[in-house]
Amino acid sequence: MRRIALGVQYDGLPWHGWQTQPGGGTVQDTLEAALERFALTRIATTCAGRTDAGVHALEQVVHFDTSLDRETFSWVRGVNAFLPPSIAVRWAAEVAGGDDGFHARFSATSRTYHYLLYNHPVRSPLLSGKAGWVFRSLDIERMRAGAAFLIGTHDFSAFRAAECQARSPVKQMQSIRLVREGDMLIITLTASAFLHHMVRNIVGSLVVVGNGNQEPEWIRTILEGRDRSRAAPTFMPDGLYLGSIGYAGKWALPQEERASVPWLQGR
Amino acid sequence: MRRIALGVQYDGLPWHGWQTQPGGGTVQDTLEAALERFALTRIATTCAGRTDAGVHALEQVVHFDTSLDRETFSWVRGVNAFLPPSIAVRWAAEVAGGDDGFHARFSATSRTYHYLLYNHPVRSPLLSGKAGWVFRSLDIERMRAGAAFLIGTHDFSAFRAAECQARSPVKQMQSIRLVREGDMLIITLTASAFLHHMVRNIVGSLVVVGNGNQEPEWIRTILEGRDRSRAAPTFMPDGLYLGSIGYAGKWALPQEERASVPWLQGR
Repeated sequence: MRRIALGVQYDGLPWHGWQTQPGGGTVQDTLEAALERFALTRIATTCAGRTDAGVHALEQVVHFDTSLDRETFSWVRGVNAFLPPSIAVRWAAEVAGGDDGFHARFSATSRTYHYLLYNHPVRSPLLSGKAGWVFRSLDIERMRAGAAFLIGTHDFSAFRAAECQARSPVKQMQSIRLVREGDMLIITLTASAFLHHMVRNIVGSLVVVGNGNQEPEWIRTILEGRDRSRAAPTFMPDGLYLGSIGYAGKWALPQEERASVPWLQGR
Repeated sequence: MRRIALGVQYDGLPWHGWQTQPGGGTVQDTLEAALERFALTRIATTCAGRTDAGVHALEQVVHFDTSLDRETFSWVRGVNAFLPPSIAVRWAAEVAGGDDGFHARFSATSRTYHYLLYNHPVRSPLLSGKAGWVFRSLDIERMRAGAAFLIGTHDFSAFRAAECQARSPVKQMQSIRLVREGDMLIITLTASAFLHHMVRNIVGSLVVVGNGNQEPEWIRTILEGRDRSRAAPTFMPDGLYLGSIGYAGKWALPQEERASVPWLQGR
């Protein structure tokens, strides 16, 4: 058996999230159908981080085992021929298999998500589905001060969806960076792992601080309260991107340096 | 009567182009329906440049006459409330009306279009519908050399669609700029006016020069031949944006400095 890792990019808008479901219509269902058409045999995939409906991925990482012996790039070109415009395999690599081998989820040491927030009095149709929109002016310094309370290892129950299946609400937030480029606010979060809706709930709460409705210290209060009902409502999925997955260098994955979303270039 | 000018942005993907048609489903139909819901009276609009199905606009300019006396910004906020996510009024301004007044089409001195071309071995789902895609490496210097033959006043029949309704095929091409930013090639064309499909036919022909299948001088040959069948096929609409319309400073339109598509910023 060979183990193949793939970098997969998708526009989340047309899909009911990553994970396979009985009715289909998910990215995983569509990718596995394309793999089957290419390989002429059923292939089951494992991903690094499940994404919700409407959430995009610059570079989701998946792996699968196969007995087929194909040239590596054919897993890109061949599978893409069976994928719709909103999903593509960007790279493929053969990795070590077996119990000590590479595992898209368990080998991952961190996940980086980005949230694009268009901060302008008028919405932009060319950003529809690709960025969140806030028409009230946001103070990025207040948002940075609020975000600082989230850095480190915490119980993130206050930002966890009711349906979250994670075993523990304790995660390590490694960094939250906020940058403004013109009318676009780019929020980049890196953590050991994220709870369900955690990024969207954090972004919603940071917006409430940024627009002046709450003080930055309010973020600490809700974090310590561990009560989901006290934080802001879940923010729209439109601007959320699974950016990159952190892996040890020994796996030598050809992860991409260059994002096809300019605001996310180099972040 | 007052004359109002609007800056209108749209994602062309869901629409059958700008111009109203009996079956509806165009940007003009949708904008006029929203204007009617806001103004409670039928309003007919005139645009600066009609766009085809799938073609986007950063800033289309339209005007209309109305007897209503409303605060100017209400033509933005009020009308946007009745528009779908893929269309928005970005600004409104009251302009001089009457025979010597402002006219979105006849007062325009130039039109600028942009074409975004993603030049990468693998397509990008996050650019689907927003940029054309060429997987073979393009030589931008060859394309610049080819484009140079198009500058000036020419009969552009070689790049004109059969169904074009323009009175004359003679147009003045003021500039064609080609820039590469990472994997993105940005082509910006400014002319007095454009024939139907002219930008997409020029882009298709420049790609054939850029990938080495034709020499730059071939562009001159097909231009001089004035025969549509000799140029390259019409290129896909995905990457085409109506950028901005040139007007004399005396109209004092609040045209936007800042594009919500980063590659088009400042071009």
